[in-house]
Amino acid sequence: MKKQLNVGMLGFGVVGSGVPQILAESAEKIRQIAGVEFVIKKALVRSADETSELMKRAGRYGIELTTKAEDVLEDGEIDVVIEVMGKIEPAKSFIKRAMNAGKHVITANKDLLAQHGPELVALAKKQQTAFYYEASVAGGIPILRTLVNSLAADRIESVMGIVNGTTNYMLTQMTQLGASYDTALAEAQRLGFAESDPTNDVSGLDALYKMVILSDFAYGMEVSVDEVARRGIEGLSTDVVKASEELGFIVKLIGITEDTGHGIHVEVAPMLVPADHPLASVANENNSVFVKSFGINGSMYYGPGAGTLPTATSIVSDLIAIAEDMKADRLGTPFNVYHMPKKIADDASITSRFFLAIGVPNNKGQLSALTGMLSGMGVEFDQLLQKNQGEQAVLNIVTYPLDLKTLRNILNVLSDDEAYILLDCLRVIE
Amino acid sequence: MKKQLNVGMLGFGVVGSGVPQILAESAEKIRQIAGVEFVIKKALVRSADETSELMKRAGRYGIELTTKAEDVLEDGEIDVVIEVMGKIEPAKSFIKRAMNAGKHVITANKDLLAQHGPELVALAKKQQTAFYYEASVAGGIPILRTLVNSLAADRIESVMGIVNGTTNYMLTQMTQLGASYDTALAEAQRLGFAESDPTNDVSGLDALYKMVILSDFAYGMEVSVDEVARRGIEGLSTDVVKASEELGFIVKLIGITEDTGHGIHVEVAPMLVPADHPLASVANENNSVFVKSFGINGSMYYGPGAGTLPTATSIVSDLIAIAEDMKADRLGTPFNVYHMPKKIADDASITSRFFLAIGVPNNKGQLSALTGMLSGMGVEFDQLLQKNQGEQAVLNIVTYPLDLKTLRNILNVLSDDEAYILLDCLRVIE
Repeated sequence: MKKQLNVGMLGFGVVGSGVPQILAESAEKIRQIAGVEFVIKKALVRSADETSELMKRAGRYGIELTTKAEDVLEDGEIDVVIEVMGKIEPAKSFIKRAMNAGKHVITANKDLLAQHGPELVALAKKQQTAFYYEASVAGGIPILRTLVNSLAADRIESVMGIVNGTTNYMLTQMTQLGASYDTALAEAQRLGFAESDPTNDVSGLDALYKMVILSDFAYGMEVSVDEVARRGIEGLSTDVVKASEELGFIVKLIGITEDTGHGIHVEVAPMLVPADHPLASVANENNSVFVKSFGINGSMYYGPGAGTLPTATSIVSDLIAIAEDMKADRLGTPFNVYHMPKKIADDASITSRFFLAIGVPNNKGQLSALTGMLSGMGVEFDQLLQKNQGEQAVLNIVTYPLDLKTLRNILNVLSDDEAYILLDCLRVIE
Repeated sequence: MKKQLNVGMLGFGVVGSGVPQILAESAEKIRQIAGVEFVIKKALVRSADETSELMKRAGRYGIELTTKAEDVLEDGEIDVVIEVMGKIEPAKSFIKRAMNAGKHVITANKDLLAQHGPELVALAKKQQTAFYYEASVAGGIPILRTLVNSLAADRIESVMGIVNGTTNYMLTQMTQLGASYDTALAEAQRLGFAESDPTNDVSGLDALYKMVILSDFAYGMEVSVDEVARRGIEGLSTDVVKASEELGFIVKLIGITEDTGHGIHVEVAPMLVPADHPLASVANENNSVFVKSFGINGSMYYGPGAGTLPTATSIVSDLIAIAEDMKADRLGTPFNVYHMPKKIADDASITSRFFLAIGVPNNKGQLSALTGMLSGMGVEFDQLLQKNQGEQAVLNIVTYPLDLKTLRNILNVLSDDEAYILLDCLRVIE
């Protein structure tokens, strides 16, 4: 086997520039474990201004910068291509060209994997090239490799993740400081945790992409983006956050993929997390993935979801995996080999406790009419908290477990009844 | 390659009996991932009473029980031996006989690994057999495989673990309910979290064994048991637990293995954990390992440290690793291949904040004399909390970082001065 693997990078920005740092810092350890040396030869960048900071950084590690993709993709000496450009195109075309040229590929591109993962996995298999993407979910947390190695022996019941640092930072501000949504967003933008257009984060789309990938690794099922229920944190009210806290819960943007016994259900939404649940204490921009499974029962994997060095560490662990595959003659074996026919759960099989906030004219008779009506529709109350908010009374309810079909009926009835205002409805995790 | 791997078990008690359960529950997934079927043929037990519950359980899975070790160790059809007997002998001799007969070995025996690990690893290498032991540290948490795979690319600065469920349960009782050490121990025994002789747990010895194994995986250094500083939780006072809480810390039995830059330092002791540190919220019998590293920075792995199914899940992940090794023709490759010359840090290179509880006659002049004396010896105060406890005043101090050599001098001076009573001194982690 070769003693040196040559690496070409597509992109050399925030994430990419960490890769040579990690390779340098852990050189001896990587040499012992991988049995080869990784040398970054070239990096594709938008402009190669000789005086730029980028150029200096590349020069320090002996990396040649280029603005032409073919310099990387058609260089016969390059064994592995690392894609850290982001977005769908031209990343997708570049990855396919690399695979078609027999190069191994590493990417951190969750958008691409969630939307075109199966196509790329199939091409890698056909071309007998390695294709890894540990950094695509939860940055520095080694969750994908843990699912395929250590949890290979376990039957997974659900995977719940705080997989978006921006929204977790914002919700921490809203919970701990009582900040409004707008204030929390402005603060996240000021600190660089949120982009100037934060849509992908606050709408839950970024988390959704990660849950699509996690569903594949947990259940061997290739869920498509439109099969995932999604609600972001836009407009989430501080009243709901406060009432949840008084009831013993912390509101978090949770991505869940769960086996209901009748198929899987994948959803991203703000949910109520019990204050003593391990996910409740995951604060600020940190990420965490909680796995409920038959054997281990509950295990959690916590760490940074983004950042130059954490993401680069995951990428270099993929490089080492490629070296192992070459030694073991298992190139072309997909990152996740487990596959099952896809089965999406219907609403009747999805059960959960739910939180409801319902506005009621400040009138005792009407409150008891409301609880009576809900009881009549099969709702049992786990907790009730009445609060006066301005002109109206608000009844905050945590139900006993209901199925989602029943819940939708209840929400329809409430929406049709002018006596009540449905302020919010969120799922409560266990 | 074989389509079936035959397994023999040494021991079929609390841990062992979970292995066939996991193999049955995850049969299809394991078949896809490992590409082979694992069949448990025989299990060595102390007595094979045909009417016993054990016998019925074994019968359900078609496992033959035997009281003769040679029935397992000399059966040419058995490919893998799983040792779940515990203790050093005869487990060690049995494992060596199995390896000498060319069988692959899996064990959950931390005592044995901490004391004789290198000898067994060397024998496995010589005999070209696989030797795995994921279940030996933190039961169901896949921390060893994560260190060798996902953190292979990272330079580890410290590993801090809550790796003993018994003491963590007791400390949770002491913190949350204000229970005394004796009450907490009695409660842990009543619930089966502590044995009737709890010495190994409460003395920190069990945690020490795990830190020896973690040191090998984190730094490639084979630390011997007597190179680890150890203090248990015996006699820990509720006053210290309470004062710590008022200062913003939770007392936990922490195993730490850290790279000081001048060698590694390995220690097990009750320590103060900041209330907002991820380890602080690890409650009851749960385990957790926090890794501080150059690349990822802070990551944490949380789950059950013991129990039938969690431990069995780790064992079956080892079985799958053996199947992978056979396919990849890498049998005999140690679980951890990273090795560095051992270097133990001296006291002067170990720095930390410390908590001191010092009894002082209830006299203002003497309190200021004490703080003056400590200042004179180079102690800077991060936090001070004076409490009256019975006849005396107690000064609870959190220092700014000190090196351990300086601290020892200070403790000697305090011990020699009859005006003060040194009640306790604990490390404060960051």
